[in-house]
Amino acid sequence: MTDYRRLRVALLGAGAVGSQVAALLRQHADELADRAGARLELVGIAVRDVDAKRDVELPSELFTTDADSLIVGSDIVIELMGGIEPARTYLLHAINSGADVVTANKALLATHGPEIFDAADQVGAEVYYEAAAAGAIPIIRPLRDSLAGDRVQRIMGIVNGTTNYILDRMDTEGAEFSQVLADAQRLGYAEADPTADVEGYDAAQKAAILASLAFHTTVPLEAVHREGISSIDSSMMDAARHAGYVIKLLAVCERLTEESGESISVRVYPALIDRAHPLASVHGANNAVFVQAEAAGNLMFYGAGAGGVQTASAVLGDVVSAARRHIAGGVGVGESTLANLPIVPVGRVTTSYQITLEVDDQPGVLATVAGILSEGRVSIATVEQTVVESGDGTGGVARLVIGTHKALEQDLSETVDRLAASGVVERVVSVLRVEGN
Amino acid sequence: MTDYRRLRVALLGAGAVGSQVAALLRQHADELADRAGARLELVGIAVRDVDAKRDVELPSELFTTDADSLIVGSDIVIELMGGIEPARTYLLHAINSGADVVTANKALLATHGPEIFDAADQVGAEVYYEAAAAGAIPIIRPLRDSLAGDRVQRIMGIVNGTTNYILDRMDTEGAEFSQVLADAQRLGYAEADPTADVEGYDAAQKAAILASLAFHTTVPLEAVHREGISSIDSSMMDAARHAGYVIKLLAVCERLTEESGESISVRVYPALIDRAHPLASVHGANNAVFVQAEAAGNLMFYGAGAGGVQTASAVLGDVVSAARRHIAGGVGVGESTLANLPIVPVGRVTTSYQITLEVDDQPGVLATVAGILSEGRVSIATVEQTVVESGDGTGGVARLVIGTHKALEQDLSETVDRLAASGVVERVVSVLRVEGN
Repeated sequence: MTDYRRLRVALLGAGAVGSQVAALLRQHADELADRAGARLELVGIAVRDVDAKRDVELPSELFTTDADSLIVGSDIVIELMGGIEPARTYLLHAINSGADVVTANKALLATHGPEIFDAADQVGAEVYYEAAAAGAIPIIRPLRDSLAGDRVQRIMGIVNGTTNYILDRMDTEGAEFSQVLADAQRLGYAEADPTADVEGYDAAQKAAILASLAFHTTVPLEAVHREGISSIDSSMMDAARHAGYVIKLLAVCERLTEESGESISVRVYPALIDRAHPLASVHGANNAVFVQAEAAGNLMFYGAGAGGVQTASAVLGDVVSAARRHIAGGVGVGESTLANLPIVPVGRVTTSYQITLEVDDQPGVLATVAGILSEGRVSIATVEQTVVESGDGTGGVARLVIGTHKALEQDLSETVDRLAASGVVERVVSVLRVEGN
Repeated sequence: MTDYRRLRVALLGAGAVGSQVAALLRQHADELADRAGARLELVGIAVRDVDAKRDVELPSELFTTDADSLIVGSDIVIELMGGIEPARTYLLHAINSGADVVTANKALLATHGPEIFDAADQVGAEVYYEAAAAGAIPIIRPLRDSLAGDRVQRIMGIVNGTTNYILDRMDTEGAEFSQVLADAQRLGYAEADPTADVEGYDAAQKAAILASLAFHTTVPLEAVHREGISSIDSSMMDAARHAGYVIKLLAVCERLTEESGESISVRVYPALIDRAHPLASVHGANNAVFVQAEAAGNLMFYGAGAGGVQTASAVLGDVVSAARRHIAGGVGVGESTLANLPIVPVGRVTTSYQITLEVDDQPGVLATVAGILSEGRVSIATVEQTVVESGDGTGGVARLVIGTHKALEQDLSETVDRLAASGVVERVVSVLRVEGN
């Protein structure tokens, strides 16, 4: 066995991911040493309660509640506590103590990324966070390194496994949201409080991280437009299927070219996507990130977006990278935010839409609807009218499903308001964006 | 504009990829400087004929036939000449002159990789080759860095666009190989001499590179079992479709666990893959690499496997990485071949098979066939018999499509020989492996 230099590795947090990281660090110690060119010595695990039950068995002497003492003198600090504090304070402490840091903390990076990256820059340390954006899927290195000589035009990501699981089952089984959610909770795919997942907060954090990296721009979480999937019902799923689409919760990061120059849009919402699109075949709790770049064309990265051992794989990849850098010497590369493109509100985004309306089933209604759309600069691509409640030509209700050409979200949204107030529209059933076309 | 340090970049070769790299280096000079932290100055392009016609217009003063003089004093040398010599000599010269090198030369790496990596190790230089394995698809960094803390179990790659284009059209149109090949040649998807693509030589080179990286083992090209697609016909496509499969040319790199310890198998052949498998929906000339890792689970990387500008994206990503390393300081990481697992011949591989036979349509034939399979340790999973030529119970020909459970290739191949010699089998129509199940 090669006589490697030892690097001291401190772990903060021993939850689902942390305990797997600790176990793999020990189990694969020899192989990891060969990969890293250094022996990765797990010197301790900081937790709130040293006696808590863990997913895997670990020597009790590794555990401590004193994170600060553990951090001092460590070469690599792995932060897997989650949440903002005390994770933020510990990470900054680690950086300022001369450690390279590895984190999977999307909430922290999406809210305090610049502070952490600046601190690392000042001391020449490096921050690794492959596990923060799409679990086990390598997406950070491809964006940061492989595509560094290219220009990313758009990212469309299925970055939340819970919502993809729910939407996929709604699509394949015709089940309702609440029913599948309850199932997902029972099976451990969704939390008891599912808000962070189903309302798109988790996806928005990941979108902020991906967009920051892809567009070399600091994207604050507040700049991410966010909508969840709790309003999606089986009739919307049916209508999507009928039109050749599937509904996915997408994180869309897009470069816009306007007369005044380039800007970006970052948004999370349920959107229709063509069934032939590679993202449409991402089933269950899997994640995928579809990237369109100027030179590289279309790329897709697919895999497990969550899970303790899966995410641990990404964390360990980062640990090996950090160790290699320690051995090789040199300073950290740092995050590039030199482009700093302006971030536009969702109103300035252009997509196409599928608008579903219930209208009075009487002569002239379609003409009225078409007129309002046209006035609002929303051009109709397809229209399908079906009778919901027959009234023999008067008093009945018809359903109009309108597919639009690309329109400005601002125009679309104002137009939908005017439709709702027009007197002929009984109900705006749904308005969904179409992405990927 | 930031006042960056200048790095001298030399380009060897100005073909489809090289000319795009040169154009993008100039066109995106400011952005690349921001990404790299250094101004990437293209100091010259070495070519055989300075007056040859190029895909893009470039200043004539950049061109030279004197590669050696160009290399001396360059910080980064990009080798896009292809072929073994003089590419090998130039790359070694560049490394020994103190440059980091970027190459897309799969033939060179698959045959002289160890020599080049050793030379780089000795001077602390780094060799970047993201474009050598799957064009624009980032697969080298994920294998080398992201999965460095994991254990790759298997890679199944569609790594040759020409053959995927041909097989995809045969599958969707029911066309014959020769007809689609002629079309592919006309459309520029296949070379005038298509041997390297259709006989699997190109895929075998990529498989050797991927397996070396995934298993930390030097995989010589000769150790890669290779079969092409020229024997695939429309009846095999039909039979595959009928059984729920599609035929793809796969590069399979697999870790085997035998009693004597771990070993690996690297093989390229047309194989059946379930239509529900993510690789089955890789259409046209696209590539995809499906990776199964112990902790990360299933990952897939999808995109353009070839094309001048697409491949140029991967090359430029490498150039930016090389530049960042120059700025950061430190030595190269080097290739890890410390595992050096033994490579087994294809006979020791275990997969399942679909065997198609034409047999005499008479009583007892199925029993005879089943008996030979059983004696050969090949277990039948499914069997379907159809009449090809009716003979009213005697003198006719029946077709048997047999799906096997997993069997050792050695056993299978000997069993097929015995079937062919058995007297009841008129013709062994095809024997195809089933992968991904």
